[in-house]
Amino acid sequence: MSGDPVRVGVVGLGRLGKRHAANLALRVPGAELVAACSPSADEREWAKATLGTKHLYADYAQLLAHPGLDAVFLVTPNTVHPEQIVAGLRAGKHVFCEKPLSLELDECLAVEAEAARHPRLKVMIGYVRRFDASYQDAQKKIASGAIGRPFLVRSQTTDMNDPSGFFVRFAPKSGGIFLDMSVHDIDAARWLLGAPQPRRVFSVGTIAVHEGLADCGDVDNGVAVCEFEGGAMATIYASRTMAHGHETTTEIVGTAGRLVVGRDGRLNQVEIADGHGIRTETTPTFWERFEDAFLRETVHFVDCVRFDRPPGLTLHDATEATRIGIALRTSLVERRAVEL
Amino acid sequence: MSGDPVRVGVVGLGRLGKRHAANLALRVPGAELVAACSPSADEREWAKATLGTKHLYADYAQLLAHPGLDAVFLVTPNTVHPEQIVAGLRAGKHVFCEKPLSLELDECLAVEAEAARHPRLKVMIGYVRRFDASYQDAQKKIASGAIGRPFLVRSQTTDMNDPSGFFVRFAPKSGGIFLDMSVHDIDAARWLLGAPQPRRVFSVGTIAVHEGLADCGDVDNGVAVCEFEGGAMATIYASRTMAHGHETTTEIVGTAGRLVVGRDGRLNQVEIADGHGIRTETTPTFWERFEDAFLRETVHFVDCVRFDRPPGLTLHDATEATRIGIALRTSLVERRAVEL
Amino acid sequence: MSGDPVRVGVVGLGRLGKRHAANLALRVPGAELVAACSPSADEREWAKATLGTKHLYADYAQLLAHPGLDAVFLVTPNTVHPEQIVAGLRAGKHVFCEKPLSLELDECLAVEAEAARHPRLKVMIGYVRRFDASYQDAQKKIASGAIGRPFLVRSQTTDMNDPSGFFVRFAPKSGGIFLDMSVHDIDAARWLLGAPQPRRVFSVGTIAVHEGLADCGDVDNGVAVCEFEGGAMATIYASRTMAHGHETTTEIVGTAGRLVVGRDGRLNQVEIADGHGIRTETTPTFWERFEDAFLRETVHFVDCVRFDRPPGLTLHDATEATRIGIALRTSLVERRAVEL
Amino acid sequence: MSGDPVRVGVVGLGRLGKRHAANLALRVPGAELVAACSPSADEREWAKATLGTKHLYADYAQLLAHPGLDAVFLVTPNTVHPEQIVAGLRAGKHVFCEKPLSLELDECLAVEAEAARHPRLKVMIGYVRRFDASYQDAQKKIASGAIGRPFLVRSQTTDMNDPSGFFVRFAPKSGGIFLDMSVHDIDAARWLLGAPQPRRVFSVGTIAVHEGLADCGDVDNGVAVCEFEGGAMATIYASRTMAHGHETTTEIVGTAGRLVVGRDGRLNQVEIADGHGIRTETTPTFWERFEDAFLRETVHFVDCVRFDRPPGLTLHDATEATRIGIALRTSLVERRAVEL
Repeated sequence: MSGDPVRVGVVGLGRLGKRHAANLALRVPGAELVAACSPSADEREWAKATLGTKHLYADYAQLLAHPGLDAVFLVTPNTVHPEQIVAGLRAGKHVFCEKPLSLELDECLAVEAEAARHPRLKVMIGYVRRFDASYQDAQKKIASGAIGRPFLVRSQTTDMNDPSGFFVRFAPKSGGIFLDMSVHDIDAARWLLGAPQPRRVFSVGTIAVHEGLADCGDVDNGVAVCEFEGGAMATIYASRTMAHGHETTTEIVGTAGRLVVGRDGRLNQVEIADGHGIRTETTPTFWERFEDAFLRETVHFVDCVRFDRPPGLTLHDATEATRIGIALRTSLVERRAVEL
Repeated sequence: MSGDPVRVGVVGLGRLGKRHAANLALRVPGAELVAACSPSADEREWAKATLGTKHLYADYAQLLAHPGLDAVFLVTPNTVHPEQIVAGLRAGKHVFCEKPLSLELDECLAVEAEAARHPRLKVMIGYVRRFDASYQDAQKKIASGAIGRPFLVRSQTTDMNDPSGFFVRFAPKSGGIFLDMSVHDIDAARWLLGAPQPRRVFSVGTIAVHEGLADCGDVDNGVAVCEFEGGAMATIYASRTMAHGHETTTEIVGTAGRLVVGRDGRLNQVEIADGHGIRTETTPTFWERFEDAFLRETVHFVDCVRFDRPPGLTLHDATEATRIGIALRTSLVERRAVEL
Repeated sequence: MSGDPVRVGVVGLGRLGKRHAANLALRVPGAELVAACSPSADEREWAKATLGTKHLYADYAQLLAHPGLDAVFLVTPNTVHPEQIVAGLRAGKHVFCEKPLSLELDECLAVEAEAARHPRLKVMIGYVRRFDASYQDAQKKIASGAIGRPFLVRSQTTDMNDPSGFFVRFAPKSGGIFLDMSVHDIDAARWLLGAPQPRRVFSVGTIAVHEGLADCGDVDNGVAVCEFEGGAMATIYASRTMAHGHETTTEIVGTAGRLVVGRDGRLNQVEIADGHGIRTETTPTFWERFEDAFLRETVHFVDCVRFDRPPGLTLHDATEATRIGIALRTSLVERRAVEL
Repeated sequence: MSGDPVRVGVVGLGRLGKRHAANLALRVPGAELVAACSPSADEREWAKATLGTKHLYADYAQLLAHPGLDAVFLVTPNTVHPEQIVAGLRAGKHVFCEKPLSLELDECLAVEAEAARHPRLKVMIGYVRRFDASYQDAQKKIASGAIGRPFLVRSQTTDMNDPSGFFVRFAPKSGGIFLDMSVHDIDAARWLLGAPQPRRVFSVGTIAVHEGLADCGDVDNGVAVCEFEGGAMATIYASRTMAHGHETTTEIVGTAGRLVVGRDGRLNQVEIADGHGIRTETTPTFWERFEDAFLRETVHFVDCVRFDRPPGLTLHDATEATRIGIALRTSLVERRAVEL
C-alpha cells in the first residue's frame, strides 16, 4: 500500500471527540494520532493515558502550530466550526469537521470560498450516514436502477427521551431540532435522490414532553416536507422523545421498488421471547447504530488525504443541508411554507 | 341471542358490492340478504346464481320499495352516495354506505342534517380500518395509556401499480388522490388521536408514473402534513405506484411509546428464502389486507341495527374526513398551506 | 350454489366443542346445527341460549337417533374417538372428528376398516393446519416446485406455560407430549414432504418445569428426529413451557429454497416500541393462531358432504400420524431409536 | 495502555489466513504482524505487497525460528493443527489456531497435555461465535437469568449451495459435515448451556444435492440431537445446500424465555420491496456474518497475551466439541444412538 501515514491532530475531546481520537489512534490504517487539543485538563490527560497521545494542547492555535501535522479533526461546538475550518486551511491542514458545517448560510459560503483557495487540501464534513454500509448499499442499488427512478425519501432521526431534559439548556445554540438533527436526513435525501434542487419546504412541530423548549421557540418533535425540482419529495421526522431508543430510518421510494435502511434500530442480532412477546432491543444512541460508520468515515477521509482523492461529499453538500435546514426552521417559526 | 334478523338489500354489485353481498348472504349472523340492485343484468344474474338472492332490481327506487326491507348497503359510485343515503333514510331504512360520505362538504352536512331527522335509523360510512382487529387493538392500547399521550400519526395507503393505468380514466371523478385514498388515513388519525380539531394542512405531490393524471390536476404520489389543535400532528402518504403490493401502515407515536399497525402488508405467515434473500409476499390489494375487517364491519353494523346500538363511527366523523381531504386537495392544487 | 344444507350434530361442548358449534351455527354456509350433545346440563343450556340449538341430548346414542341428521362433529375426549366414529358411521352419518384418530394403532386400523364399509360417508380427522391459509400457501408453493425437492421439515408446537400445571393431571391419558402435540407436526411434515414412508425415529425429552409429569413418564419439552424413505427428514420440537405464548412454526427446506410458516406466532399486525425495545405480542393459545383455519376446515368438510367430494386428508393420514407418534413415545421411554 | 506489543507470525495465507493477517497488520491494537509463512510464493508476495509484511517464510519451522516472535496464528489445514500447535508451544510461542483443534480425540488430548507443560503460554482455538457481539449479548443475558434456566439449544450452520460442488473433493479430509460445520454449534451449545456433560447423541443425514459425497460416507444435510446431563438438550442442523446464503442461527430456550441469535442471516440493514415482496439479502458466506467477530476474537487473544489473561475458551472446550462431533459422525455412519 502506498501513501505516507497521515499525522492527525484531534480538536475537541468530548464524548464524540474521544471516539474519533481512539479510532485514529488504534483502528485507522495509515493514520497517526500525533496531537490533540482540549481546554479540559482531564480530557488531555485521558488522551495521554488511554491513547498515548504525545502532544497535547489547550488551544487550537497551538495545535495548528505543531510541526509536521497533516490534518485536523474538528469535534468542537457547532458555532466554532467555520472559523476553525478556515484557520486549519490557512495553516495548510486537511480538515475533517463534524456536521453541521455551520448554522448560518453565509458562513457556509465563506468556508466554501476559503476552501476553493486551497485546492490541494481536503475538507469534509462528517455526514456519517454516507459511510454506513447499509446506506451505501442502498445508494448503490439505487444507482444501479434497482428501484427505477427514486422520487421520494422518507427519513427520520429519533432519539431516546432523556427524562432529565438535560439537552434543553443547549437548545438555544443547537439551531433547533431540524438544523441539529434533520440535517442528516436532508443530506441523505439529497444523496439518495441525486442532489436535486430544493424548491419549497413546510414544517410543523410540537412539544410533546419538554416544555422548556418553548422559551427558545424549539420543539421536541417535528415533521417536515421538502419539495425538490423535477417532482422529487422528502418527508422528515425528528424526535427527541422516543421511549425505545435511537432510530434512524430512511425509506427511498422509486418507480420500480422501495428500500428501507435501518428500520427499528435493532441493537444486535438477538431476539428475545418472554412475557412481553417477541422483541429486539434498540440502539440507545446514534453511536451504537453508527459506530462502524464513524470508523469507515475516518478511514475514508484519511485515504483521501493519503492518496489525494476527492472526499465522497463536498462542502457544497454540507452547505445545501444547512440551507434546507434553515428553511425548515423558518417554516416552523413563521408557520408558512418557505420557497427556496 | 335476541334481535330479529335484519333484512338487507345491497345496492351496487361491482367488485366490492359482490363481496358485501356474499358476506351478508353467507357469513353475517342475523342478516338476511333479501334483495339486491344493479343496473347490470350480469351482476343481477350473479347474485341469483351464486347467492340465491331472490329479489333483484335494476333500480334503487324499486329496491327501496321492496316490502319488509330493514336496511340498505350502498356500494355505489362516490358521486351518488349523498342522494342515495337520503333516499334510504326517507324510505325508513338503516343505511350502510361505503366511504366516502361525499366529495363535497355541503353534501356531507346535508346528509348529517337528514339523518338527524331519523334518530331511530342507523347510518354508518364504511371506514373499514376501524373494524380491523389490529387497528382495534392499537386503539385499545392507546386508550389504556400504553403509549402515554398520542401526538403523532404517520399513515400511508399505497396501492400496487397498475401498469395499464386503467384508473387514470376515473381520476377526474375520484376527488383526487387524497380524497380517494387518504381519507382512510385521516379517519384513522382522528380516531387514534382522540378526534382533535384540524387546524392546518399542507400537501405536495408528484406524478411518478401516470402522466395522464396531469389532465385533471391529480398526482399518483402525494405526501401531506396535518396539524391539529393541542399539538397533535399527522403525516400522510398516498401512492398508486408501489411495485410490491398494497400496504396500509399506520404509526402512532405517544409520549411513552409507539405503535405500528400493518407494516409491510404481509400477505400471510409464509416466509420464503431463496435466491432473492428472505422475503414475504405482500397483499396485492386492500381486499386481502382487510377482508376480515369488511366482515367485522358488516357484523358490527347489523348488530347495531338488531340491538339498537350506536355505530362505532358517526356521520360527523365521515364529514370531518372529507373536510380534511378537501383541504389537502386544495393545498396540492393551490400550492399553499390551508387553514381549517 | 347446489348442494342441500347439511344437518349437523355436535358431540361435546367443551371449549373447542363450543367453538365448532358456533361456527356451524353461524358461519358455515350450507350447514345447519340442528342438535348437540353433552353430558353437562350447563353446556346444553349454553347451546340453547347462545346458538339457539333446538335439539339437545345428554347422550351420543340419542343424538345419533335424531331424525334427519346428516353428520356428526366429534369434539370429545381422545379415548372415545374410535368407538364414536364407528357408531356414527354405522348410524349412516358423515363424521368429522377432532384429532387424534386414536392413541392406539389397532384402533386406527379398525376405524379405517369400518369406514371402508361406508364408501358414501365422509370421515375426516381435524388436522387443522391443513386448512390454514399460510400452510396451504406453503403446500401449493412446494407443489409448484418453488423450493425444488423438499427434503427436510423442522416443525414445532409450543404452548405457553401454565404455571398452575393444570394439564399435568390429564397427562396420563394424553398419550404423552408427542402423541398429544406433535401429531400436528407429523401430519404437516408428511403432507408437505409428499407422504413418504417413515423409517426410523429418535426422541429425547426433559422436564423443565412440571415435575409432576415424571409420574407418568412424560416430559414437558421434547425433541425428535424422523427419517423417511428417500432421504427426507423431519425434526420436531414440542414444549408446554414457553414464556411468550403459543407458537406453531414449520420450516420446509428444499433443494432450491426454504419456506417458514408461522414464525414467532404473531398475535396480530401491531408492533409496539417502548422501554422493552420493539416487539410483537404472541398468540396466547392455538385458538388465536388457528381460529380462521378451524372455520375453513369445517367449511371444507361441510362442502365435501354437500358436493360429495373426498376430504383433503384421509383416515390413513391420521393413522400414520398416530403410528409415528407412538414410535416417538416409544423412543422417549425406551431411550432408543425405533425402526418403523 | 500497558502491555508490550505482541509480535505475531501468521501461518497459512489462504482466504481466511489473509483475513487474519490483514486484521493483525492493520486493525488490532497492540499487535504487530512481523512475519508470515506460506508454501505459496504468490501468497507470500501478497503479504509483502498488501500488508508490508517484512519477513516471509515458506516453512513453519523457519517462521518459528524468527527471532523475537511472541505468537503464531495457525490458519492451516485441519490435519496439521495438532502438530503445529505442539511445535509452536515447544518453540515458546503463544498459539492461536483456527477450529477445529483436531478431528481425532487422542490428538486433542495430546495437545492439551502439551499445553499443560507451558502454563505461561496462551493457546486458543478459534471458536469465533464466542466473540460475536450478539452471541456475547445472549450469553450475558442467560448468565443474568433473563430466560431462567436454559435447557435447550437449537442451532444451525447452513451454507449457501455451491452448484459446482467444489467442496466435494475436500470432503474426505473434512471429518464429515458434523465435525466440519457443527462443531461451532456444539461449542455454542456447551457455552450457552453452562458446559454440561454430553450423554448421548443421534444423527441422521441425507444427500440432497451433491451425490459425490456418497463416496466418503458424507452428507450435505444433517440433523442431530444431543442429550446432556441434567436434562439439557441440543438439536443441530447443518447444510451445504441453502439457496439464499449462509445462515448461522442459535436458539436458546429457558424456563422463563427464549433467545434467538442471528435469525435469517441478514446481510445488512436494507430492506427491499419490489416484485418479489419485501425482502432482505442474506450473508453469502460466514465471513460477512462474522467479520467483526473475527476481529474481536483476535483482539481478545492479543490482549490475553499482552496482559497475561486466560483466554475466553479453553483447549478442553475445543476437545469437547471434537468429542461430540466424532460421536455425531459415528451415529450418522453406524445408524445408531451413541453414548458418550
